[in-house]
Amino acid sequence: MEKVTVKQLYRESEKFAGKTVLVKGWVRTIRASNAFGFIELNDGTFFKNLQVVFESELENYKDISKLAISSSLSIEGEFALTPEAKQPFELKAKKVVIEGKSDADYPLQKKRHSFEYLRTIAHLRPRGNTFSAVFRVRSLAAYAIHKFFQERGFVYVHTPLITGSDAEGAGEMFRVTTYDLNNPPKDENGKVDFKEDFFGKETSLTVSGQLNGECYALAFRDIYTFGPTFRAENSNTARHAAEFWMIEPEIAFADLLDDMELAEDMVKYVINYVMENAPEEMEFFNKFIDTTLFDRLNNVVSSDFGRVTYTEAVEILEKSGENFEYPVKWGIDLQTEHERYITEKHFNKPVFVTDYPKEIKAFYMRINDDNKTVAAMDLLVPGVGEIIGGSQREERLEVLEARMAELGLKKEDYWWYLELRKYGETKHAGFGLGFERIIMYITGMTNIRDVIPFPRTTGTAEF
Amino acid sequence: MEKVTVKQLYRESEKFAGKTVLVKGWVRTIRASNAFGFIELNDGTFFKNLQVVFESELENYKDISKLAISSSLSIEGEFALTPEAKQPFELKAKKVVIEGKSDADYPLQKKRHSFEYLRTIAHLRPRGNTFSAVFRVRSLAAYAIHKFFQERGFVYVHTPLITGSDAEGAGEMFRVTTYDLNNPPKDENGKVDFKEDFFGKETSLTVSGQLNGECYALAFRDIYTFGPTFRAENSNTARHAAEFWMIEPEIAFADLLDDMELAEDMVKYVINYVMENAPEEMEFFNKFIDTTLFDRLNNVVSSDFGRVTYTEAVEILEKSGENFEYPVKWGIDLQTEHERYITEKHFNKPVFVTDYPKEIKAFYMRINDDNKTVAAMDLLVPGVGEIIGGSQREERLEVLEARMAELGLKKEDYWWYLELRKYGETKHAGFGLGFERIIMYITGMTNIRDVIPFPRTTGTAEF
Repeated sequence: MEKVTVKQLYRESEKFAGKTVLVKGWVRTIRASNAFGFIELNDGTFFKNLQVVFESELENYKDISKLAISSSLSIEGEFALTPEAKQPFELKAKKVVIEGKSDADYPLQKKRHSFEYLRTIAHLRPRGNTFSAVFRVRSLAAYAIHKFFQERGFVYVHTPLITGSDAEGAGEMFRVTTYDLNNPPKDENGKVDFKEDFFGKETSLTVSGQLNGECYALAFRDIYTFGPTFRAENSNTARHAAEFWMIEPEIAFADLLDDMELAEDMVKYVINYVMENAPEEMEFFNKFIDTTLFDRLNNVVSSDFGRVTYTEAVEILEKSGENFEYPVKWGIDLQTEHERYITEKHFNKPVFVTDYPKEIKAFYMRINDDNKTVAAMDLLVPGVGEIIGGSQREERLEVLEARMAELGLKKEDYWWYLELRKYGETKHAGFGLGFERIIMYITGMTNIRDVIPFPRTTGTAEF
Repeated sequence: MEKVTVKQLYRESEKFAGKTVLVKGWVRTIRASNAFGFIELNDGTFFKNLQVVFESELENYKDISKLAISSSLSIEGEFALTPEAKQPFELKAKKVVIEGKSDADYPLQKKRHSFEYLRTIAHLRPRGNTFSAVFRVRSLAAYAIHKFFQERGFVYVHTPLITGSDAEGAGEMFRVTTYDLNNPPKDENGKVDFKEDFFGKETSLTVSGQLNGECYALAFRDIYTFGPTFRAENSNTARHAAEFWMIEPEIAFADLLDDMELAEDMVKYVINYVMENAPEEMEFFNKFIDTTLFDRLNNVVSSDFGRVTYTEAVEILEKSGENFEYPVKWGIDLQTEHERYITEKHFNKPVFVTDYPKEIKAFYMRINDDNKTVAAMDLLVPGVGEIIGGSQREERLEVLEARMAELGLKKEDYWWYLELRKYGETKHAGFGLGFERIIMYITGMTNIRDVIPFPRTTGTAEF
């Protein structure tokens, strides 16, 4: 008798028709009369359930009939195609072994629960439809990203999480220490003395692997990072988490145009991969989470992404006649309302906005010949706004040093980053993609807490 | 004219023979007479260099001749097969554009440098042979792991790094806080009050994602994690880092035998994948780093791994006649010398040691019927010793609670972990593989600092 998964039964039902098979899984629903009963069995391998029919001839029929949701079973039965019925096939149970009984107080009953409530049972929520779909898609999208870059010869680099430098000053950081906070060693001035701490100095959790990534791009040419990143910002929004995953490719002998091409190819690849490999989950999202989802994703996949400079974008916004909450003029950082107008109303497709004023962008971005803007790009997508931010990097040592001096950054802190410009500098570029952002975009889920298995946000580090 | 990579030229040299191509890369070596010169050009896409011939007819011949190592160039030239020469082909330069001159003090000169020295220039070391090979292999091995699990339908789970619980008490932890250590808020007893800290309580960096992983295995059946893990242990050895990457698969409806089968398949798969996809790098390791490497890896790939219980292993050691530094008797934790005797001398192949005394293993491992041992397994490999540790998990609520009480672990701290045993428990198992351990094993590198791009160890968090 063959051990099979529910996925196998769905994908190769003809092959198993009429055969006796062994399936193991959890009860999603159960109902029984005196004579027979039905179980919807889910084994975790597939989004859909297997319908199991069990009859009163089974010696443990009564025990089975009384099972609570989420009980685990091992079932031998005959797999039968049922072309006349609603479901395509069913398993006629010959023997049912109860592996683990679930308690009757199982918190995930059949009725709908709010996402807020489900966050309080993050250890159980992937057993329901929505979160099993979200987290399978998350897994597939992560793999798609690796596959995309590896097929193109990119080297995957694990950049460090604990860092002794403030990198780009991109955000508030978490401190990392082995000191007992009640009693840390002090120096003669009564200040905490970090010389005795684990790393011999103050350390934090990284906000970006980019600067480290650049070192590797200047050795391997094309690299990417994919790892956790941290922000200690006290912002209790639906789009911010303290711990999230980020993808940061970096390409040498490449400029901003190459960078945008890479970003566009990657986004399309990931969406296509998920659509092909999780069709049932995607149907579910399109039906129950966001009915515009397929339209939106198909639009992304089939469009040539638009391109517009920041200066042009500002003109478009000024001429739009829209009444924005934040007034538009050259020099401002675009707000979500502006970004969405550009991508949704004006272009109605994803669009790269390029060449931002240097004042609102990071020190490492390459200064354009106008000396006012930098070779930066943000990818805006309908329904969300910014999803990717990138730039060509400043490869000219003097220009970079001058810019750092302007911003008060110390050369000593970036000695190794600056050395990349001394020893065979090249044009290079890269971008960052917040992984959760693209998962939200692909699934239609609107709260970042619902696309991270065990989210860490202000005030919350449960499980 | 076609832009090509050095990898393309090596892999499809016939296709490009006689063609004019454009290549960009960095100078690895350069020598020139008055009439002509040679450049070994590396573009990061391939382990080997492209030989470039340039002649004094080039208008910038003198500038080129004087270039320092690691200068970046853009070269148009004719690609010619050279069957009569040592190298298989060369590029006859027609035009050489100097993109970035390297300084003459470039620290990675052609002579051999010690690995210790190279750690001090971690931003440049991947530009040399050894570390370009190490980090390409690391990238390929990481991908092989994803590919292995994804092809088998496993769901990739991102378990949290910041944790509010001490998990399994597996090791010293780093504290995470946003408090200013000079002045943290205190409660009425003068102790640090964590209520005001970012997460409203004390938090640390995780030592294992296993307990979180189990939640997902009991939803998806087969899952794996692959992410950073931390140990704040003050051990300055060649095998320990404060930050490293770990793979932790977890499989439901599975026992210790399934677990060992999975581990064996995975190890073989990763080795085969790297051998196939980085043949040049692996040749290099076998020639310059560890001349027993191929023998060792071929032995692993072609062996059926041995299996022996801890009790049998102790008997083997007692009867061995060896004079061990640590005397052997039933109940001790096996030391590296014991492990290596078992795998190298007795079996001469990888071997799983199973069923360890419960006293030396973690609380979550399943108690065997003898009530003395647990369903644990360690995989020992020749040349290293332990490389994987795993177990079947205790799925019986009462047994688990009793074991936790014995060890003084509080039920409240593990409420969600215990609930997995209330709501549809099943047999399940898993293991942990330190990613750096397998990279060291595959490359022959003997110091963990040399297989992590920017290592974090006691006293060191540079770059």
